[in-house]
Amino acid sequence: MIITVVGLGVVGGSFVKALKGQGHEVYGVDVDEETLARAKADGCIKEGFVDGREIIKRSDMTIICLYPSLVLDYIKEHEFKKGSIITDAVGVKTHFLNEAMNLLKDKDVEFVSGHPMAGRENKGYLYASKEVFQGANYILIQHEQNSKSAIAMMEQFVSNLGFHSVKIMSPQAHDEIISFTSQLPHVIAVSLIDSDNQKYDTGKYIGDSYRDLTRIANINEDLWTELFFTNKDNLLKSIQGFEDQLDILKKAIKEEDSQTLKAMFIESSKRRRNLEK
Amino acid sequence: MIITVVGLGVVGGSFVKALKGQGHEVYGVDVDEETLARAKADGCIKEGFVDGREIIKRSDMTIICLYPSLVLDYIKEHEFKKGSIITDAVGVKTHFLNEAMNLLKDKDVEFVSGHPMAGRENKGYLYASKEVFQGANYILIQHEQNSKSAIAMMEQFVSNLGFHSVKIMSPQAHDEIISFTSQLPHVIAVSLIDSDNQKYDTGKYIGDSYRDLTRIANINEDLWTELFFTNKDNLLKSIQGFEDQLDILKKAIKEEDSQTLKAMFIESSKRRRNLEK
Repeated sequence: MIITVVGLGVVGGSFVKALKGQGHEVYGVDVDEETLARAKADGCIKEGFVDGREIIKRSDMTIICLYPSLVLDYIKEHEFKKGSIITDAVGVKTHFLNEAMNLLKDKDVEFVSGHPMAGRENKGYLYASKEVFQGANYILIQHEQNSKSAIAMMEQFVSNLGFHSVKIMSPQAHDEIISFTSQLPHVIAVSLIDSDNQKYDTGKYIGDSYRDLTRIANINEDLWTELFFTNKDNLLKSIQGFEDQLDILKKAIKEEDSQTLKAMFIESSKRRRNLEK
Repeated sequence: MIITVVGLGVVGGSFVKALKGQGHEVYGVDVDEETLARAKADGCIKEGFVDGREIIKRSDMTIICLYPSLVLDYIKEHEFKKGSIITDAVGVKTHFLNEAMNLLKDKDVEFVSGHPMAGRENKGYLYASKEVFQGANYILIQHEQNSKSAIAMMEQFVSNLGFHSVKIMSPQAHDEIISFTSQLPHVIAVSLIDSDNQKYDTGKYIGDSYRDLTRIANINEDLWTELFFTNKDNLLKSIQGFEDQLDILKKAIKEEDSQTLKAMFIESSKRRRNLEK
């Protein structure tokens, strides 16, 4: 296949790196010429383009790794090869995918949306690697307009890139679960570090627990604001569920109710041990 | 020095491993004979004892790595060498240290309390290693009854074990900062994973963010219940501070107030980048 990856950041860059040696003809599109030159020097792309107009017309698959709103702009402004597949890595799907499908409805191309659960807190091609995908989860979105064959093809395609698990689900189910597994942790990490009263030189008094819980507090403000707003209802529900548990725990501490507290700890321990079994 | 480590779990075990090759005569005390045999086979202790009564009478330093309440029992029930140093790794200090000082007031030994910020979610000697201490933070507690010389000696002693930073502070200051950097993250991790409605097979839909934020949800219920209750007031304050930030963030999402949200993200990112500078 001729595959073009648009946007060689940490995710797009990981795509071209994971695709290396898989027998495809891979091209890259990016606004940054230095990134294109580096990807070419790495042997991950055959050629790089600042303007993807021509190469996309010839591509069997276009993987667009841009911010959600920019993906829609990109679809609107470009002409794709007839019969080709477009995919993405956008973190929220329902609204976005309806828009994308609408934009493509008169074109003979199929949009198969996906979510590689493999973000990094660092941006850019330098942090991309094929290891980012190894052992990670991938969610493949089955929109009502998708063909079975395109879904099956994409499932095989991403499995070949090293993802450990590929799950197929509706955009609505994706947005529901992701509000809990991805968005809520970011909400928590930001709230935690922003609640530091900075009375002490915090970094000297932390262990791995604080390090781990705040790693993702280093967050891209434009991307995540967009992701949160487009999945507002699910996210607010997930926050509420978390607050309910926090309230129970807080009450147990206040009242020194060791029975409730220990029951919560035993449950959380069991869940954590079973998490990736 | 003759040093005896009591309790060869993940922390005590890391002590004997970090002490290897430092020129001390190191002994181990543990209820589990297999652990003692392993530590001896590893060359980390010269001899192991299920009953530490005799060896402790000869030790220049006793490092007690037991649960908080058991440390007090241990001090009560044992006779230490005159002029020797006792230290610990208990996670909450104010109340505990007053009790310990009281128990030791007629004995010619000095209790210098410390907190290696290097816990692990896994228990036991098998998870102990000298790497656990490498680059970690250590908080050395200066109680009003401590001598300058003992504090200075202990500072040097733990620096030699590989800790990256050794900070000296009062028990009250320790408990205040630790309620934020260690206890609050545990409260959050437990609440997060316990708030999973388990509608989906969660482990298939997670990325590193959920993994990182729930790692410490696998928690020792007896130890942490004790730690939370003995530092209740500080911990409740830290939870409140976190909830205040969470409320602001939630309101910003509800009202799609991108200005507030982005300001919080920019602040959290800056704090995270500066955390260990």
